[in-house]
Amino acid sequence: MNRLNTAIFISDGVEVLDFAGPFEVFSRTRLVPGVESRRSDASAPFNVFTVARLADTVRATGGLRVLPHFDFAGAPPIDLLVIPGGFGTRQLLEDLDVREWIQNAANKARLTTSVCTGALLLAKAGLLSGETCHDSLGAHALLASLDSTIFVERHLRVVHDGIVTSAGVAAGIDMALSVVESIHGKAVSDETAKYIEFPRHS
Amino acid sequence: MNRLNTAIFISDGVEVLDFAGPFEVFSRTRLVPGVESRRSDASAPFNVFTVARLADTVRATGGLRVLPHFDFAGAPPIDLLVIPGGFGTRQLLEDLDVREWIQNAANKARLTTSVCTGALLLAKAGLLSGETCHDSLGAHALLASLDSTIFVERHLRVVHDGIVTSAGVAAGIDMALSVVESIHGKAVSDETAKYIEFPRHS
Repeated sequence: MNRLNTAIFISDGVEVLDFAGPFEVFSRTRLVPGVESRRSDASAPFNVFTVARLADTVRATGGLRVLPHFDFAGAPPIDLLVIPGGFGTRQLLEDLDVREWIQNAANKARLTTSVCTGALLLAKAGLLSGETCHDSLGAHALLASLDSTIFVERHLRVVHDGIVTSAGVAAGIDMALSVVESIHGKAVSDETAKYIEFPRHS
Repeated sequence: MNRLNTAIFISDGVEVLDFAGPFEVFSRTRLVPGVESRRSDASAPFNVFTVARLADTVRATGGLRVLPHFDFAGAPPIDLLVIPGGFGTRQLLEDLDVREWIQNAANKARLTTSVCTGALLLAKAGLLSGETCHDSLGAHALLASLDSTIFVERHLRVVHDGIVTSAGVAAGIDMALSVVESIHGKAVSDETAKYIEFPRHS
């Protein structure tokens, strides 16, 4: 099977569920329904990994320590890019290495997504110009200041407009399920939601 | 503030959301409502950390790499114990070191909890005798074979009966919110649910 290389960007101060929710959804999705199919990767459509600027341990919110699979230089080609948010996001806005990596990765990816304030990094990279996107955590004004052509939608948990943006934390699970649905259909996505015992929002 | 030391046991094959959901909930709970209080630990009632048998990197489902805060020997006294599940659980059932650590930690803890098949480890340690508990992922028969005095409740996401057990994966979030509510009340728990944008099940 030709799996989609799915990169989840992590950095100090990333919100735990912002990255762990999409990691769970994409890594546990199988094209074959049921529990048993999830014991192997035989019908797994996504190859999921974490990417950080450096190969060092990342400290997420609350101090969870995650060892990234790849640093920026070592990451394989990326088909699906996930940019989570968290209190660590704002300090990355002026980070040129991060901005350039996101720009390059997003330009080559088949699909770019964000959770919560991860949208700020996409906006700073110029990727949301003229798009409708979701935002949360009171970053509304900051998002507008980064790019005044962005239309911010606050009433949906997930917004698809080329790039996929979403509300925060647990809504990253909805975002990922929504992306699974857009690529592999509702039945596959619903099976993943059932497996992870997550009540989907319609 | 006198924080509750909250230990989340992790081991190879632990389901990502089984441990990351409770980690998010307990580590992001604050007694002061709102978003800003979550920028510091000033009103954080839980001190959350991961514990593994050894200090080496743990590979969760899908290959997420987590560096535990403590090994068994180095963990501080535990007030609140969380035992997640996952496909890695069954191979731990015959592991005497794990069983003894869980028995000791649970006997000293103020509260012991599990997510999904984490209940199997509690049952094997003799901690669920005569209790009502939740189970999922088709481990029903295995649970009964470990201890025939356990009454398995399959219709609730979270069961409080001395020990707190829950359904799987995303239901670990419900479990943790339920524990927060039992200790600090509904208002604090609801604020955490709001912050993590998780729709609670009543």
